[in-house]
Amino acid sequence: MLEDKLTQTPISLESVVMIKGQVVKAPKAPNGYEIKVLLIEAINPALSPLPFEINKSQLNARLDTLLDHRVLSLRHAQAHSIFKIQAILATAFAEFLTKNGFTRIFTPKIVGSGTEGGSNLFAINYFEHQAYLAQSPQFYKQMMVGAGFERVFEIAPVYRAEDHNTSRHLNEYISLDLEMGFIESEVDLMVLETELLRHMFEKVANECEMELNLHRVEIPVISEIPRMTVREAQGILKRQYGKESPKGDLDPEGERLICQYVAKDKKSALVFLTRYPRDIRPMYTMPAPEDSSLTASFDLLFNGLEITTGGQRIHHYSKLVESIESKGMEPKHFASYLELFYCGMPPHGGLAIGLERLTSRLLGLTNVREASAFPRDRTRLTP
Amino acid sequence: MLEDKLTQTPISLESVVMIKGQVVKAPKAPNGYEIKVLLIEAINPALSPLPFEINKSQLNARLDTLLDHRVLSLRHAQAHSIFKIQAILATAFAEFLTKNGFTRIFTPKIVGSGTEGGSNLFAINYFEHQAYLAQSPQFYKQMMVGAGFERVFEIAPVYRAEDHNTSRHLNEYISLDLEMGFIESEVDLMVLETELLRHMFEKVANECEMELNLHRVEIPVISEIPRMTVREAQGILKRQYGKESPKGDLDPEGERLICQYVAKDKKSALVFLTRYPRDIRPMYTMPAPEDSSLTASFDLLFNGLEITTGGQRIHHYSKLVESIESKGMEPKHFASYLELFYCGMPPHGGLAIGLERLTSRLLGLTNVREASAFPRDRTRLTP
Repeated sequence: MLEDKLTQTPISLESVVMIKGQVVKAPKAPNGYEIKVLLIEAINPALSPLPFEINKSQLNARLDTLLDHRVLSLRHAQAHSIFKIQAILATAFAEFLTKNGFTRIFTPKIVGSGTEGGSNLFAINYFEHQAYLAQSPQFYKQMMVGAGFERVFEIAPVYRAEDHNTSRHLNEYISLDLEMGFIESEVDLMVLETELLRHMFEKVANECEMELNLHRVEIPVISEIPRMTVREAQGILKRQYGKESPKGDLDPEGERLICQYVAKDKKSALVFLTRYPRDIRPMYTMPAPEDSSLTASFDLLFNGLEITTGGQRIHHYSKLVESIESKGMEPKHFASYLELFYCGMPPHGGLAIGLERLTSRLLGLTNVREASAFPRDRTRLTP
Repeated sequence: MLEDKLTQTPISLESVVMIKGQVVKAPKAPNGYEIKVLLIEAINPALSPLPFEINKSQLNARLDTLLDHRVLSLRHAQAHSIFKIQAILATAFAEFLTKNGFTRIFTPKIVGSGTEGGSNLFAINYFEHQAYLAQSPQFYKQMMVGAGFERVFEIAPVYRAEDHNTSRHLNEYISLDLEMGFIESEVDLMVLETELLRHMFEKVANECEMELNLHRVEIPVISEIPRMTVREAQGILKRQYGKESPKGDLDPEGERLICQYVAKDKKSALVFLTRYPRDIRPMYTMPAPEDSSLTASFDLLFNGLEITTGGQRIHHYSKLVESIESKGMEPKHFASYLELFYCGMPPHGGLAIGLERLTSRLLGLTNVREASAFPRDRTRLTP
């Protein structure tokens, strides 16, 4: 409670102050106590008026305005809580994997060539050379598996020079990546991700009760995550919703509807889609054992949105060269990656979770930008 | 022990194999046991001969060759151990800070302008705009402090388009950054860093005994880290070694010699140098209270090399504008950063530790590139 002293010293809202006073019981105060102020001093005043009010229960301004004045909007308890939860998610990811024999790695984000043939890359002038920002640590995490670390993870930014400006896309985002050797099939990865997310969600539920209350969400308890092939999902969409899908894939509406279906029919907020066709998966993806036009890969959808892509990778040199060529690309452009496959490479696979998407689906945010402290999108470079 | 079966199936060195067999006691084997092979199968053969031998106690090839074939060289126990230790250092950094009320943050590496006026920046084509790779998360970690997180840390790559190609420089490296509000002076940061490094070193000593033995190093036990002003250090260099220093700074030889002096005279592998002059510190650095031509900043040297720069930052809008102008730069180029300082910003400061340099000094590596899995330097973009 700011008393007489304060009215004598006009201090604007959001200023930094030093207060000397006495803590007293006050049954009407939010947590039962107040400070009886003896001395208040402005350490650093804030400009008045502020661009928007932040002392209300909701932030009442357009998202763009909130992002333009990010230091202020992040002081609001609800915006603030998003990043407290995000920090816990990342920490829990590292914690679970470290306990399970994974080594934390750091791989370069400046790369000589793209992982998937050159589209959607940001170009950099690297002294005399052209270089690019890494779209994913894919090649490098595979190399670290092959270098004998066997199980590795990385938490780092990735870059996508995608032109679309939707509520689901960021041009720079944090990828929670893992890769592991000596798997039997992509099923090992789905089992691991189920346990991993269970740990991450439990940690958030345990440590962020206050933050979760602000968003009025309950963290899903993960037991089994249902799996279905893309073909099965397409069939369900057709039968249940009369919905057509693009060849071998689901569109964003299809992803929303299949999650709706799974939530109702299987009581799960999450669903694995498997057996994506080879044409829409990258060249390093392992073909399915029963049908080489399909792959041993999967996506994980969560509350209507894809948050993970993963799968087994090809580990034989000659099969990989074949796959690169079948995509119309030249093996010589992947020379330093290909070397991995004649050093003795075990069967392996991995996955990546988009941290902002995961956060946004967990908290029911309408735009993934809300889950990025300083988002980079088609038009935003500041702050 | 590879038995008769193996000689029947020629399997090249470094191939991936599946072995079925029986574990038997064998007193002469390195850890007292051998596998009596019943079946051995090559899962994926390695090319023979390899570019260098990796089954010797030392890797006997030039650093460039080892880096060219990184998947192979990282299989060598000594190279491998560097990254096991590095992973522990990063984990211990996060662990200590989380326990001390710091929040893990993620800030953009694509930025609209540099933190220090535009030199040494890698330029990116960001759609219609020119953008840059962040040289440090400096502005963003300050913003997160101002946004009410108060204590934050980040583990992420930073970029320096520096032309020199020395054994101490990388153009992309991992920066262990922290920033905290409501400090009294930069001394709070030096105290924190002392405790932080103590925790990191203890964790490595406890968890990496085998790895440390390979490098024949003992981890220093940190009690107090001695502090001296740059001027005092220059005096010691002059008196003890007849060494002249550049104005207000130490050169690389001076850093080596002062560490040598401190190791002998104060029994410490680490030393804080304080009171760097304003001309050689960035515009956001707080001037020293007793002499505004000096700063409330410091470097930390470890076994001959600077591994940290830190200090208190200016938190008053008008003083910061003045400082920007005194460096010949225009405040309007820092508009979104400057907004922070009229939202009510507490006294604050922070520091950054170069992870590869820390690793390399801890293990006595001769070149910082050895502490980067896939280094980026003046000429290296692959693998």
